Amino acid sequence: MLLIKNGTLVTMNKSFDVLKGDLLIKDNKIIQISKNIPTPEGAKTIDASNQFVLPGLIQSHVHLCQTLYRGFADDLPLLDWLKNKIWPMEHNHTENSIKASADLSILEMNLLGTTSILDMASVRNTHALLESVEKSGIRYWGGKCFMDYKDYSGPLYEKTSETLKETEELIKYWHKKNDLINYALCPRFVVSCTEEILIESRELQKQYDLIIHTHASENKDEVDIVIKRTGLRNISYLDKINLLNKQSAIAHCIHLDEHEISLMKNSQANILHCPSSNLKLASGIAKIEQYINNGLRVSIGADGAPCNNNLDPFMEMRLCALLQKPIFGSEALCAQKALEIGTLGGAMALGMENQLGQLSEGFLADVITIDRSHPSVYTVQNPYSAIVYSCSGRDVTNTIINGKLVVKNKSHQVFDEESVKQSAKLELDKMIRRIEN
Amino acid sequence: MLLIKNGTLVTMNKSFDVLKGDLLIKDNKIIQISKNIPTPEGAKTIDASNQFVLPGLIQSHVHLCQTLYRGFADDLPLLDWLKNKIWPMEHNHTENSIKASADLSILEMNLLGTTSILDMASVRNTHALLESVEKSGIRYWGGKCFMDYKDYSGPLYEKTSETLKETEELIKYWHKKNDLINYALCPRFVVSCTEEILIESRELQKQYDLIIHTHASENKDEVDIVIKRTGLRNISYLDKINLLNKQSAIAHCIHLDEHEISLMKNSQANILHCPSSNLKLASGIAKIEQYINNGLRVSIGADGAPCNNNLDPFMEMRLCALLQKPIFGSEALCAQKALEIGTLGGAMALGMENQLGQLSEGFLADVITIDRSHPSVYTVQNPYSAIVYSCSGRDVTNTIINGKLVVKNKSHQVFDEESVKQSAKLELDKMIRRIEN
Repeated sequence: MLLIKNGTLVTMNKSFDVLKGDLLIKDNKIIQISKNIPTPEGAKTIDASNQFVLPGLIQSHVHLCQTLYRGFADDLPLLDWLKNKIWPMEHNHTENSIKASADLSILEMNLLGTTSILDMASVRNTHALLESVEKSGIRYWGGKCFMDYKDYSGPLYEKTSETLKETEELIKYWHKKNDLINYALCPRFVVSCTEEILIESRELQKQYDLIIHTHASENKDEVDIVIKRTGLRNISYLDKINLLNKQSAIAHCIHLDEHEISLMKNSQANILHCPSSNLKLASGIAKIEQYINNGLRVSIGADGAPCNNNLDPFMEMRLCALLQKPIFGSEALCAQKALEIGTLGGAMALGMENQLGQLSEGFLADVITIDRSHPSVYTVQNPYSAIVYSCSGRDVTNTIINGKLVVKNKSHQVFDEESVKQSAKLELDKMIRRIEN
Repeated sequence: MLLIKNGTLVTMNKSFDVLKGDLLIKDNKIIQISKNIPTPEGAKTIDASNQFVLPGLIQSHVHLCQTLYRGFADDLPLLDWLKNKIWPMEHNHTENSIKASADLSILEMNLLGTTSILDMASVRNTHALLESVEKSGIRYWGGKCFMDYKDYSGPLYEKTSETLKETEELIKYWHKKNDLINYALCPRFVVSCTEEILIESRELQKQYDLIIHTHASENKDEVDIVIKRTGLRNISYLDKINLLNKQSAIAHCIHLDEHEISLMKNSQANILHCPSSNLKLASGIAKIEQYINNGLRVSIGADGAPCNNNLDPFMEMRLCALLQKPIFGSEALCAQKALEIGTLGGAMALGMENQLGQLSEGFLADVITIDRSHPSVYTVQNPYSAIVYSCSGRDVTNTIINGKLVVKNKSHQVFDEESVKQSAKLELDKMIRRIEN
């Protein structure tokens, strides 16, 4: 058992209770939240006197396989960035390099307070990547990326039949292999996919009860390609082929018309908002305030490290709030709403809103603690303001996933940080040599 | 003497050299930069093997007097924020509370890599604030705020003659009292100032060779008030009364027309860009890429803590770059340019471009070191990308101002961090009680 004592518990429960008290974890569940819980015999304890305690943050759109390329693909627009940098780099992965990339990503995300992710892997080496994920102990949804539309897949092109065959094998091997690993279907985006594989994705979704994770309407040129090919805007096309439902997780959704907003609402499909990435790739600013006021489901992610260049959910929550204000006014998207997006919103995107995203008895024990003693934070009384506007991921001290203390006092308990960083550098150097040759 | 060894020196000099090597400080100057400098007898050394070494960051627009109100004035537009929150709070300062506010601000800024600031104090208690500044050892420009236009100054209104009288006393006592303290004239903004005091500011500027530090064109309603009162847009009006020159430091400048951009260019007046604050107060996004391409002088600042809510120059540099991209394309405002704005741009705003803002022999020894071992940073090869896009202010390890080690291995050497934070909280509590009574 694990007892977190004397914290400021920012529960994110239905009544948004903020309590000064204790939280008790048994096995993988939160079993008690109250003042002065007596320490059970043999329980480990964490003193959270100067800490916020909150549900682990959920990033609903990341690419573990891209993290090695951070800083190697700056200052490019989306389609050039993909074709000239990201796809050639993904193409040059080996099993070792993709493992190094995944390890570095998960290390960073756990240290910065992320407990659950929805990932899009690359076309190849998915098995190796998932082995890294399994070792790490992060709560994971994700899978192999589909790119079977030859003219828009570059070196990552793969035949539809091969993709489907490997996908079924991966699902059978990996989906719910343990408490933490969940397979997700990942057609990259309409531009890189045949209609056949998109429709097959829907069939696999039904057959295995899986999330479909894709990108849409990130960039105006991308939308134009989809219109040219299908006669429809991006979200309208996904609706036409029955790909919108509450297990659809769609990154970006910046360029939606009113009809598409209503399609997203009626289908309960999830928007995966990535504010830093949307700025850095010059994609635009998604109108999140409008989406939320329309009842759309919104969660948050850092996207790939090369388009951010961090995997810090605190940066994304802060930007998520700040970017709406010049568009909709200073009252738009307050700090509490941004934290909702980073917790409850993510839980909804994963279909886990009854088990994740809040500190409540009976919920899964994904919990983080944040030091509130930095001079940037110390005097702030409103916890939402402190967490969203003033804290950094660097202030996270403990990260608990499924009841297990993965980061203890800023030190990762599963990974040896030094060796993960060194092997990432080594694999990066080898990859650069492979690309140059 | 102080020798920084084996760092990655990001010099920001004229040829933008990045060197692996050593940097030697004697008294308050950088006296040598090269590989393998032998340790002079009695010199202190800093091992910067895994660190970036760069010129201290310069924030050209801050309000030390506002830091206690962080988190107490969220989600409001500029004019409401000022009238309903900031002015009543500034009005309720005592000498003790303004000192506590200044101490907390300087502690935070030094820890996060800021070595020079251009500050705007409040209307009252300036002497007390400057006493705190003097003790701290930060490199400072700033002074008493002018608010003599009765209908737009709230409780901070002061008669023109009184303002001018106190200002001359403050200049005589404080300006160049030591190497680090420089007085600056601070008419708050046209809205709160009579034409008389603006013109008198120009006279005092000439007489004492001072920077004039003000706000302009932050908010559309503010611009409308200026047009209504003067018949001119904000910058055009400042030009008409001869307030634009290279010692003019003008915060925000978001809403400028083409004529005003040319006025800023021809006068060499300095734009003090505050991207987080401009988002949070819903003011807008200044077109920095256009300004730079037109040859305008741009520097950066966090503005007041209640409209940010951090005083972290790394956040501002990252946002400065990212926000331009959706407007001007992904190539706009690259990382190197953002770091220029945070160093050389600030030095220009202070008239110190021949002494500050770069690591060069003979320059003043304002230097910071940044740990590059965080998993978010470790594998990034391009130093500008690493510093601007991936580092956090939390990664700063050492801060040297005027040759003196102010922050050593993340620990402040002048302030006792705990007592600064506790006295800030105490003074904040007292202030809240004063406001409520």
